[in-house]
Amino acid sequence: MTILELQRTFPGLQTGKSMHRLATELYPLCRSITGNGFRDSLAILGREVPLNVVDVPTGTKVFDWTIPQEWNIRDAYIKNSQGEKVVDFTRLNLHVLQYSVPIRETMTLAELRPHLFTLPEHPDWVPYRTSYYKKNWGFCLSQKVLDSLEEGQYEVCIDSTLADGRLSYGEIVLPGATADEILISCHSCHPSLANDNLSGMVVATSLARLLAGVERRYTYRFVFIPGAIGSIAWLARHKEEALKIKHGLVVACVGDPGPLTYKKSRRGDAEIDRAAVHVMEHSGEPFNVKDFSPYGYDERQYCSPGFNLAVGSLTRTPHGQFPEYHTSADNLDFIRPASLEHSLQTYLSIVGLLEKNRVYLSLNPYCEPQLGKRGLYRSMGGQTDEPANELALLWVLNLSDGQHSLLDIAERAGLPFALIAGAADALLAVDLLREQAMEAKR
Amino acid sequence: MTILELQRTFPGLQTGKSMHRLATELYPLCRSITGNGFRDSLAILGREVPLNVVDVPTGTKVFDWTIPQEWNIRDAYIKNSQGEKVVDFTRLNLHVLQYSVPIRETMTLAELRPHLFTLPEHPDWVPYRTSYYKKNWGFCLSQKVLDSLEEGQYEVCIDSTLADGRLSYGEIVLPGATADEILISCHSCHPSLANDNLSGMVVATSLARLLAGVERRYTYRFVFIPGAIGSIAWLARHKEEALKIKHGLVVACVGDPGPLTYKKSRRGDAEIDRAAVHVMEHSGEPFNVKDFSPYGYDERQYCSPGFNLAVGSLTRTPHGQFPEYHTSADNLDFIRPASLEHSLQTYLSIVGLLEKNRVYLSLNPYCEPQLGKRGLYRSMGGQTDEPANELALLWVLNLSDGQHSLLDIAERAGLPFALIAGAADALLAVDLLREQAMEAKR
Amino acid sequence: MTILELQRTFPGLQTGKSMHRLATELYPLCRSITGNGFRDSLAILGREVPLNVVDVPTGTKVFDWTIPQEWNIRDAYIKNSQGEKVVDFTRLNLHVLQYSVPIRETMTLAELRPHLFTLPEHPDWVPYRTSYYKKNWGFCLSQKVLDSLEEGQYEVCIDSTLADGRLSYGEIVLPGATADEILISCHSCHPSLANDNLSGMVVATSLARLLAGVERRYTYRFVFIPGAIGSIAWLARHKEEALKIKHGLVVACVGDPGPLTYKKSRRGDAEIDRAAVHVMEHSGEPFNVKDFSPYGYDERQYCSPGFNLAVGSLTRTPHGQFPEYHTSADNLDFIRPASLEHSLQTYLSIVGLLEKNRVYLSLNPYCEPQLGKRGLYRSMGGQTDEPANELALLWVLNLSDGQHSLLDIAERAGLPFALIAGAADALLAVDLLREQAMEAKR
Repeated sequence: MTILELQRTFPGLQTGKSMHRLATELYPLCRSITGNGFRDSLAILGREVPLNVVDVPTGTKVFDWTIPQEWNIRDAYIKNSQGEKVVDFTRLNLHVLQYSVPIRETMTLAELRPHLFTLPEHPDWVPYRTSYYKKNWGFCLSQKVLDSLEEGQYEVCIDSTLADGRLSYGEIVLPGATADEILISCHSCHPSLANDNLSGMVVATSLARLLAGVERRYTYRFVFIPGAIGSIAWLARHKEEALKIKHGLVVACVGDPGPLTYKKSRRGDAEIDRAAVHVMEHSGEPFNVKDFSPYGYDERQYCSPGFNLAVGSLTRTPHGQFPEYHTSADNLDFIRPASLEHSLQTYLSIVGLLEKNRVYLSLNPYCEPQLGKRGLYRSMGGQTDEPANELALLWVLNLSDGQHSLLDIAERAGLPFALIAGAADALLAVDLLREQAMEAKR
Repeated sequence: MTILELQRTFPGLQTGKSMHRLATELYPLCRSITGNGFRDSLAILGREVPLNVVDVPTGTKVFDWTIPQEWNIRDAYIKNSQGEKVVDFTRLNLHVLQYSVPIRETMTLAELRPHLFTLPEHPDWVPYRTSYYKKNWGFCLSQKVLDSLEEGQYEVCIDSTLADGRLSYGEIVLPGATADEILISCHSCHPSLANDNLSGMVVATSLARLLAGVERRYTYRFVFIPGAIGSIAWLARHKEEALKIKHGLVVACVGDPGPLTYKKSRRGDAEIDRAAVHVMEHSGEPFNVKDFSPYGYDERQYCSPGFNLAVGSLTRTPHGQFPEYHTSADNLDFIRPASLEHSLQTYLSIVGLLEKNRVYLSLNPYCEPQLGKRGLYRSMGGQTDEPANELALLWVLNLSDGQHSLLDIAERAGLPFALIAGAADALLAVDLLREQAMEAKR
Repeated sequence: MTILELQRTFPGLQTGKSMHRLATELYPLCRSITGNGFRDSLAILGREVPLNVVDVPTGTKVFDWTIPQEWNIRDAYIKNSQGEKVVDFTRLNLHVLQYSVPIRETMTLAELRPHLFTLPEHPDWVPYRTSYYKKNWGFCLSQKVLDSLEEGQYEVCIDSTLADGRLSYGEIVLPGATADEILISCHSCHPSLANDNLSGMVVATSLARLLAGVERRYTYRFVFIPGAIGSIAWLARHKEEALKIKHGLVVACVGDPGPLTYKKSRRGDAEIDRAAVHVMEHSGEPFNVKDFSPYGYDERQYCSPGFNLAVGSLTRTPHGQFPEYHTSADNLDFIRPASLEHSLQTYLSIVGLLEKNRVYLSLNPYCEPQLGKRGLYRSMGGQTDEPANELALLWVLNLSDGQHSLLDIAERAGLPFALIAGAADALLAVDLLREQAMEAKR
């Protein structure tokens, strides 16, 4: 089965609802860049699709960075003088500043305040904060709760450990007909945040499961990594192999109801950039395209100048541009089955395009071939309109000079890639085209 | 006489009225892609300008195609049971499906219906239909007439022959100072259709007659061909010589009252593309520019990837975009003397530009030369405005570095080509310029 | 002190008022392309900054031109029959057609009229006219005065000399760390006209004085020349050395209240073009950018095809586009201290940008370096916004691949050059960058 055939049978195969259920199961786990919560999450994904877990020990040098100590947490709270838990990690894992060192102390509210983080502009929401590389401790809580706290003594407990251990990441490799790779990279280190990035984790997992069942020209590599340090660790361990990555997408924030947003690779005109834009342009739905910038998710690392990989990022509303971003309001209600489903289908269309995109050579370059005698052209002349499929045949014949890929042709013709690819298949079938090496155009 | 001088004396020389009279004479002939109607039409054009007729026998292989049998027709009609001709070829040759095989039979209206073609959305008009490459017969008639037919027996007669013979085309070659060619290609295979393409036939003929009387840098080749099969036949017989074609225009639909439309060559930025756009931009009249597409007239063949010639198409309203297209409403009233005249003048301006376009080299490249001492610059300083002709002199001097043609200069200066060319002539006259080989810029 | 440090202390250092005072002192002198008025003006500028005066004798060949005779004038008037001076050079030096030959005659108004120049559309203003290269004499006066003249005899006196002598120009050279030059060219040949070009003379002089006191990577050359013949003479005498000019600006019309206008060099995308546009874009103030044309000031000569230097022109309202241009209304009231000051600061910002613009190479090209451990990045994660200075660090690291100058980076990032340059300095200080040769990018 090809991706195209898969897509034709798609609606009944896989639904956004099952992705949402998977996100619901993952939601309560306290993920961080290291620790049990991350590994437990990989174990859940591994039920869906064969996933290899790789460990990198604390202290390992990865380029300019060092793998940090592993952080684990069992409990955390703030109790008031009546013994009531006014902040309770077991109810919401965002309440703890990630990588908080352990503490168990009684202190005044004034002493506690420098360790409390709130969002005054959203008084009901709890922010998400981290301090991976500077030792600190703290609590995140709503402004409303903070305002309700009375002066007095508070019992503060963070039952965490910060110790040598390992950083883990998950990897799925689906071998294809060629060693050329398509990378799907997904940061998986956030605790109870749904759009950023449980949505990415469930869409990437579903995509892997679907691609496992189809013919593949490309080899697919999915990585489920802690943000920044994870992609840096992966790249440090695969410095040469990374060159096999011909196209890549960083998947995140794909569950909110906003339109799709594609952020281009540093190259700006890579095949992945053009493929993503083409698919969205012909989708009939609103979308946004942004130029590369070195701020964002792990494309920062893949697009660092030493690698400069053709890796873009396809999200819905980008990080930082929805108010719920990095707050307790980025919860399971914020992500929608329909959005997850639409995101998955778009990813599938993009990789489907890459799978089919090639450079062909017309075997009849002098004048048009007589399509009518091959049953590819109407016999009655004189009508006004050219049917789109005949036009697609003419475009493929006209531009198959060894200089234009099917995507080049689709772009110049202003026709959907699928129509152009179908025309190429029809022309191949009657020996009017032959394939030419693709490498020159990449 | 140069083209420019010709154009200065133009209004009295040639008028749209005489072109319209020639179209009127050609209108009743039943042209098709082969046959006597086509040759009779060439004979009429040959009265205006020396025209060579070339024959290609039936069965000749031309690339992927084969020259079809020759089709001739003497009469065709449908008679009702009262013996009245309800459809009569002798009154309008569009009534017969082109390349209809002979038939003489009586049949019911129900049996006849699959062979009748109408335009329900224009109930008074008769459509134009062909079936060159699939044996068939049929009649084209107005929806009104069809609706008036009563059930009953009809006598059907098509007195045609389809037999081995030849495909003919007309050719005019006007030798120039160089072997480099400008091609004007004109399909001439349509029966009583005025805009498509009697208009093209009379404008091309008038253009040839005018160019025959002027100094020519380029060699001009005019071909009057049956659409598609004709250009394919010509290209198959001139595969190597076609490379001499440096610029070309496909002329059609140049008599309607709509604005001019230029369709670019496949190259998109060829000198002919830029020349046509420049002339229209400086005409002060509305115009349209369209990108190349592989659907249309014979540019489809000239711009096939094996040739990729710099051939565009200059029409007024393009094929298929006026309701009268390929119907009986595309008649002699639809084309206007003023439109024919304006089209002819525009063609003349474009080839006039190509004739004059060259790359010059300033002989005084370091600082401006002192134009005043050569009488080319006002002597009084301090005024605000630079006269356009002085500005043109400065532009030509500044950009004549061997990298810019006069058209490049006109485009960058935003000045009409004629002004720039005049400035170049003035500078040549005082030895401030010399010509440089043009080839590099083509 | 660097230019940047200079700019930080700028407001107290130098003001538009002192430039206006200098213009006031220069205003009454009768400058022309040769003569004592020009040299007296250079002497005044030479009090501000060391300025070398160069003489070129009458008759010297400079490319296609010849240095003209020297013109000096002591007095000129027209007296009516009552002996009243109706036109008096000593009250306004614009009253005499520049380069008028001497005359002392009595004639009728009718005989006088062909030698009288007015501006009918501005009846109170006196025009500025010249006749350098054709022997002539004449008077410029207001239309109102002309209208008031009665028929009768007039005594006409122009006490001028036109004799072999010399053309003079002033030059300031401020050596820098490299022999690469930045040229500031300023025509200084106009009599009592304030915006064109006393404004340029005082801004250029102030710029030279400021640059004399700072560290310089580039060598700066200021030329105060008669328009056209002066730059031609300079280029003829420095044909080889001119190649050292890497960037240049022609300064004129920098005192009026209009917005800044940058006219690009003939190259159109030279570093000076991009630097000037960048500075104006980030100024928060309105500005205009015009493409090169071969009409204007001395950029006509610097950008002639033999030289094609990267010389643009930064003015406020361009020549010919303010009604006061080349009239008595271009007086000291028309130029404003604030405009002079703003122009000077913009020139300083542009050369400051050129001084700092380089290509760096990241020493950590694989993934991002860990900026936090170097104190360059916040330690708390999870917040929404990236501070601009951190973003600037990421952009410099991402694009410092040897292919991008800091200006390239600033343009792509959409950030002010100063922020990008500051980020580069910070990264240099922690050994994350090293300089690469700039030459490839020029």
